[in-house]
Amino acid sequence: MRPLLCLLACLCLLVLLSAPAARAGAPISEATQACLDCHNEATPGIVADWKRGRMSSKTPAQALKEPEAARRVSAKSIPAKLMKVAVGCAECHTLNPKTHADTFEHGDAQVHVVVSPKDCATCHPTEEKQYGKNLMAHARGNLINNPIYMNLADQVNGVMSVKGRKVAMAKPHPASEAESCLYCHGTEVKVLGKVTREDPNFGEMSFPKLSGWPNRGVGRKNPDNSLGSCSACHTRHQFAIEMARSPYTCSECHKGPDVPVYKVYQVSKHGNIFYAMHKQWDMAKVPWTPGKDFSAPTCAACHASLLVDAAGNQIAARSHQMTDRIWVRLLGLIYSHPMPKEPETWKIKNAGGVTLATTLGGQPASKFLIGPAEQAKRKAAMAKVCGSCHSQGWVQGQFARLEQSNKDADAMVLAATRLMQEAWDQGLASGPAQGKSPFDEFIERVWTQQWLFYANSTRFASAMMGADMGVFDQGRWELGKTVLQMHDWIKIRQKK
Amino acid sequence: MRPLLCLLACLCLLVLLSAPAARAGAPISEATQACLDCHNEATPGIVADWKRGRMSSKTPAQALKEPEAARRVSAKSIPAKLMKVAVGCAECHTLNPKTHADTFEHGDAQVHVVVSPKDCATCHPTEEKQYGKNLMAHARGNLINNPIYMNLADQVNGVMSVKGRKVAMAKPHPASEAESCLYCHGTEVKVLGKVTREDPNFGEMSFPKLSGWPNRGVGRKNPDNSLGSCSACHTRHQFAIEMARSPYTCSECHKGPDVPVYKVYQVSKHGNIFYAMHKQWDMAKVPWTPGKDFSAPTCAACHASLLVDAAGNQIAARSHQMTDRIWVRLLGLIYSHPMPKEPETWKIKNAGGVTLATTLGGQPASKFLIGPAEQAKRKAAMAKVCGSCHSQGWVQGQFARLEQSNKDADAMVLAATRLMQEAWDQGLASGPAQGKSPFDEFIERVWTQQWLFYANSTRFASAMMGADMGVFDQGRWELGKTVLQMHDWIKIRQKK
Amino acid sequence: MRPLLCLLACLCLLVLLSAPAARAGAPISEATQACLDCHNEATPGIVADWKRGRMSSKTPAQALKEPEAARRVSAKSIPAKLMKVAVGCAECHTLNPKTHADTFEHGDAQVHVVVSPKDCATCHPTEEKQYGKNLMAHARGNLINNPIYMNLADQVNGVMSVKGRKVAMAKPHPASEAESCLYCHGTEVKVLGKVTREDPNFGEMSFPKLSGWPNRGVGRKNPDNSLGSCSACHTRHQFAIEMARSPYTCSECHKGPDVPVYKVYQVSKHGNIFYAMHKQWDMAKVPWTPGKDFSAPTCAACHASLLVDAAGNQIAARSHQMTDRIWVRLLGLIYSHPMPKEPETWKIKNAGGVTLATTLGGQPASKFLIGPAEQAKRKAAMAKVCGSCHSQGWVQGQFARLEQSNKDADAMVLAATRLMQEAWDQGLASGPAQGKSPFDEFIERVWTQQWLFYANSTRFASAMMGADMGVFDQGRWELGKTVLQMHDWIKIRQKK
Repeated sequence: MRPLLCLLACLCLLVLLSAPAARAGAPISEATQACLDCHNEATPGIVADWKRGRMSSKTPAQALKEPEAARRVSAKSIPAKLMKVAVGCAECHTLNPKTHADTFEHGDAQVHVVVSPKDCATCHPTEEKQYGKNLMAHARGNLINNPIYMNLADQVNGVMSVKGRKVAMAKPHPASEAESCLYCHGTEVKVLGKVTREDPNFGEMSFPKLSGWPNRGVGRKNPDNSLGSCSACHTRHQFAIEMARSPYTCSECHKGPDVPVYKVYQVSKHGNIFYAMHKQWDMAKVPWTPGKDFSAPTCAACHASLLVDAAGNQIAARSHQMTDRIWVRLLGLIYSHPMPKEPETWKIKNAGGVTLATTLGGQPASKFLIGPAEQAKRKAAMAKVCGSCHSQGWVQGQFARLEQSNKDADAMVLAATRLMQEAWDQGLASGPAQGKSPFDEFIERVWTQQWLFYANSTRFASAMMGADMGVFDQGRWELGKTVLQMHDWIKIRQKK
Repeated sequence: MRPLLCLLACLCLLVLLSAPAARAGAPISEATQACLDCHNEATPGIVADWKRGRMSSKTPAQALKEPEAARRVSAKSIPAKLMKVAVGCAECHTLNPKTHADTFEHGDAQVHVVVSPKDCATCHPTEEKQYGKNLMAHARGNLINNPIYMNLADQVNGVMSVKGRKVAMAKPHPASEAESCLYCHGTEVKVLGKVTREDPNFGEMSFPKLSGWPNRGVGRKNPDNSLGSCSACHTRHQFAIEMARSPYTCSECHKGPDVPVYKVYQVSKHGNIFYAMHKQWDMAKVPWTPGKDFSAPTCAACHASLLVDAAGNQIAARSHQMTDRIWVRLLGLIYSHPMPKEPETWKIKNAGGVTLATTLGGQPASKFLIGPAEQAKRKAAMAKVCGSCHSQGWVQGQFARLEQSNKDADAMVLAATRLMQEAWDQGLASGPAQGKSPFDEFIERVWTQQWLFYANSTRFASAMMGADMGVFDQGRWELGKTVLQMHDWIKIRQKK
Repeated sequence: MRPLLCLLACLCLLVLLSAPAARAGAPISEATQACLDCHNEATPGIVADWKRGRMSSKTPAQALKEPEAARRVSAKSIPAKLMKVAVGCAECHTLNPKTHADTFEHGDAQVHVVVSPKDCATCHPTEEKQYGKNLMAHARGNLINNPIYMNLADQVNGVMSVKGRKVAMAKPHPASEAESCLYCHGTEVKVLGKVTREDPNFGEMSFPKLSGWPNRGVGRKNPDNSLGSCSACHTRHQFAIEMARSPYTCSECHKGPDVPVYKVYQVSKHGNIFYAMHKQWDMAKVPWTPGKDFSAPTCAACHASLLVDAAGNQIAARSHQMTDRIWVRLLGLIYSHPMPKEPETWKIKNAGGVTLATTLGGQPASKFLIGPAEQAKRKAAMAKVCGSCHSQGWVQGQFARLEQSNKDADAMVLAATRLMQEAWDQGLASGPAQGKSPFDEFIERVWTQQWLFYANSTRFASAMMGADMGVFDQGRWELGKTVLQMHDWIKIRQKK
């Protein structure tokens, strides 16, 4: 028996040892070595982090040789000078120097600070293209260019002052905006000039002075005019796929009461399986096999990853257009509605000419929204993912509940909106019809929470099966309480 | 030295390899193989998930042979035809076909969709019996049959509409109830007829059409008239004990502001030890040894698991009647009180004939509640669990604090209730005495939060030592603020 | 190839096996063995837990021999009788018996219950000394001796009663205080006498009766008159450094809405990297190398741990004076301000003679606070930590945002405070000028939340880059809503 075990031991160790062995394999370019020579000391953390990752251990040439389903690069061909070296500092930070306004002379190289989706597209063009059609790539523009949304943002970020009995509000400071809405939506990173900094080890050096920096918002406007930040999800500099696939990554932007996706996931069965069992999973396997590599979906499993069954049959295609399997928008302002046709939602106009996907009464701006056929197609694609583990009856039952929850939440928003309208009509508050912001009075903030917090929670709780978030924790309980609060507020003022 | 190390390597690998070896050991029945032949493709995720678990790797015959303390089946004998095969699809989904209204012809088998506690009792009869005495098994009936609770549920789930200045409320849609309270409490799963579905791979097939499906609420009413869902905690289809023992599982239903148990655990010392250290623990060991297998309790450790010390002496018996070591009910409506004698709490009547365990003034319905002797017995059983790691002085000190916190929270509920009564008496709101719901006005919702959210948080924070949740995060701060808010609300209305 | 693999197997196992081997090495003193003889059975959990830890596996003599950077004891010399045995029960619980009022006769030993920082200082004197200069060591006194803070605490913990239309408040019960504010700030543990307990296995035994017990608050007053509790973070009895370094530990006290540090960390990029990747990290390595041992900071990495780069150059010194790299106090009452010079903040007096670091109008009590030079020094020390992974431009950009967020939050507190003053001036509420508590009316609670919850969240969200917590989740949204709510509240009352 002993020889057999010895053999097994050897095989086992071979497997264990093969990973680091492969990692050690990618040669480092001279240019990158020059970076490392200083940055080993200047920013040791990111150097060490990069060394743990795939970028430092595989060359593009090796990556291209992997079987198609396991391949992580989508380029058919990659520039020759990149092919046989690790994807290191210089490979990314000196790409496309002329399109980068943030290119500067650093050491002997033309380096840019902000690696952009266009840079990543050198090896990952399909992902970059898909991402460009994604709502997220346009997250900045969809906020900045929409006067309603920007009015809300200004009301959130502006600083109030009180004089006598009056409350006044100043325009938000750009740093406040960058630290608030634009943290996730993305800042505009522009080169404002040059700045000289004294480094204790390396002496005086010159760098580009950037606006809106730092930022890794999903819709960031980059110095090369591209949109987005791959590192929002593919965190630098290990770029571990297990991180992009983990729900924690998505939680960074999708956790607050306005987009309570992660909060719902946390109390869902799927979430609970993830937390309890993911120690046993292979979060890095490509392609990814439900049941075998993981036993409950993370955000990526349903919305982005390439999934196959044990026999290799494809269950879902990899997509960086995250809306591919989403047929209804749950955090629409202010009602749920079919997904927009185009990712630039600021171009939508409702029946009243306002930049919203529905009217205040709930009528959808249908010509800007996908139709029933496209909805059905996306629903079927999602059902196929669910079908990895659930019967059709189960899935259709759940989808029917989501539909009802959307109806419920929409009706509760309508009830609150009617009361808001009543307050405006009665002169108890001043809204758009009076030329005022709909967000700058207490009762308007109460109304806003109805759709921005509680309706969203109720819908997401159904979509992702985390019931609690849809009931007492910012869900149906609050939807009803808010209507009653608004009614109560109007009543005592009307009596006078 | 090398031979010794080689020997060690072999032994080490032997241990590593023995688990999968054992797993591979259970033969699969012909009936289950027939299921797998299609479901490998139809629902690959759950097939793969099942293959990772114990059910696929041990036969009941093997399970019965384990030493008593390590044994996970409680049956003395198990039907012969199940004994020597893995516990697979067919073994569970074709059990007791005649008692299952959801049995249908599928392939060549009489299959039922909903595996019930009675099915699981084939191998786990003690657990099923204990669970039946558990409050959780009756969670659905305790809600549905209690007019006060159902009035609250209707107010949560009903949809409001506003006409002019009036708020009207419609009865909740069954799908809304299923997605809200009954998600955890349990739906009634009934066969409504048949439904034919077209499968892309397998053609047209007929299935039972089920009401209240999907659901895995703890008090689900099943098509075989049994109550409960084992998979609520023993998640399909790996059925991993490490998951049932992890706090994430309990969090699915016990996290919201109404039952903030998991939120308290998260900020408790016990929780913090779990999160930081459980990578090093053996969450699957049976029996479970504090300090050795794990170093801080999860929910299961205190309420359910068989615990022994390093010498094998029993610290706590396994129990699926989770109230065995609980002497006081912390989320009673509306005051804390001794645990109910019987799990069907809807049969309780207070001094006023109302289906509550106390009156609105706090007087307990003592004849329905356990007495001091039973309380002392349960308290001692819990103290023995605490005693694994804590001195008697520590434990009694903590218990005394819980008692005081309950008094504090109850007093604060009484203060709010007096103000509510004052509002009702003054005609500022309409309550039960006026033939109206106590939950359908704003001020009544404020009052409801006092006992449903904040008193519960304050009590649980003491019970589970997560102080923060009992102070500023939904605890004492809110208890006081709510009393002041109600006082303020009454004051401005009384002046008129 | 096989011999090579065998060799690799051996080496690999040698590494694997060497750790437990070392652990088994520390001899146990006779005195500790006497403890274990009973406590193996009496409190098996903590015995087993201790056995997993470093204290049971290394003698002080071995610890002293480690290279300086890796050394975890700071004493130059350790009493001879402790040197060559494991640090066991008797080694700590019988130290300094005469200074411990809680020393009692137990078995044949003079045992004390509460191991204090002075005991730990036997081997860790530098840490004890640093900790004594820490705000945390004085957390109890800073609350108890500050009349403003204690008034807030009394309003939180006191129990209200309603008679007719009046709300009265009783003084808090000591058990309530211990379970609330003092849970983290620390109780006073005093010996009140003796208590006899009957143990089922060991018969009747006598123990000291302690006030304020159990407690492990960071500023606990111990029976030997020392301050603090090392086990607040270095959890008994494994004392694992990986736990002290994990963010969960800090979350126990820093999670609620008043100190929402952990909530911010959870949605930050740093937090997300931790959750997704820490399975791969070495949380126990001393010294700790960013990028190599871990790829995102936990609380300890920025505030306490000894950090070095891959070449061994020190990035940050180990410190138990957690304020060493903090230049601005974010949870000041009620405005942000430079850190206090001395840890006993209750000695601070503002321009009005009140025990606060600023006036209600925001003027800092500068002579009690660090000046610009000390602020710059601390900021630079923190910037060096950030510099492990980030460029100077990145870091300075983030620091500038924090400064702006502090300005924003302070301005919003000022706006609310002006409205509060207006309400007091108008007689709509009664504050300090009227000889009343500023915390005992509804509108005062609303105002309190402005600085205690929302301003803190907004500032911390900037400091730790968890944007969401500073926007809709208790951040800027609530800051604005509160001002509007207070304005609305005053308006309707003024009309009369």
